[in-house]
Amino acid sequence: MKLGEDEIEARLDAWPVARLATVSPEGRPHQVPIVFARAGGELWSPVDGKPKSGRELARIRNVAEKPEVSLLLDEYSEDWSRLWWIRIDASARVVRPDLAERESGFMAARKALRSKYPQYAKIPLSGDPPTLLAFRVLRIESWRSR
Amino acid sequence: MKLGEDEIEARLDAWPVARLATVSPEGRPHQVPIVFARAGGELWSPVDGKPKSGRELARIRNVAEKPEVSLLLDEYSEDWSRLWWIRIDASARVVRPDLAERESGFMAARKALRSKYPQYAKIPLSGDPPTLLAFRVLRIESWRSR
Repeated sequence: MKLGEDEIEARLDAWPVARLATVSPEGRPHQVPIVFARAGGELWSPVDGKPKSGRELARIRNVAEKPEVSLLLDEYSEDWSRLWWIRIDASARVVRPDLAERESGFMAARKALRSKYPQYAKIPLSGDPPTLLAFRVLRIESWRSR
Repeated sequence: MKLGEDEIEARLDAWPVARLATVSPEGRPHQVPIVFARAGGELWSPVDGKPKSGRELARIRNVAEKPEVSLLLDEYSEDWSRLWWIRIDASARVVRPDLAERESGFMAARKALRSKYPQYAKIPLSGDPPTLLAFRVLRIESWRSR
């Protein structure tokens, strides 16, 4: 079964984690769990501003060459009749702080992230203003067990 | 911080869900949550034998052309000091029931799946003997918040 449109909207607003898959220039898939929020009709996710190693920027490097990404929201349960997922094909772009003023959605995105994640009251959004990934949704598929 | 080798082994045995990312022939990433078990030095995941639509076999189609996949195990927590993930680069192959006898790991994999997931006592492993994806681990990265 598919999820209803309202259910999808509600979960995009409330579900705290997604898995982001990007593709490397060599064609290898790469995944990372992300936090995200909706703003201005797009999904936004903060990226660590000061990674400890070059590896952590793989998603940035990948998106720069291949903007097609996959976002997956899902809930695992031992009760397999309660499983569901939402799979989003999106086009991603990197929004760096120095470009922020040119991006109308940036301030709204930062506000939406702070509002969705009270954790940001204690843990600064890295880079603040942070580098963000913005995801334009191209297609949504969904499934639930029943 | 990285996870210790023992912690990674323990989570590969006990953690019930992973997200599988494959790449389509056109270069698009595709994700799906999977159950999996370890057997014979590989990871194994059952695939629905009788999908309701062609779409559901995307992972099979993708793996046939591009065996490089990513597996992600992670746990979300509102307490961000408890976050962790394990990211696995793997080479995947499809093991169909009619090839099962040629695959030494197949029976061990089916047994490992039944042992890890008591749900299979009530819900048959589809296709039983099911089509399986086998993942040969190429590289493991890990991270935990502290």
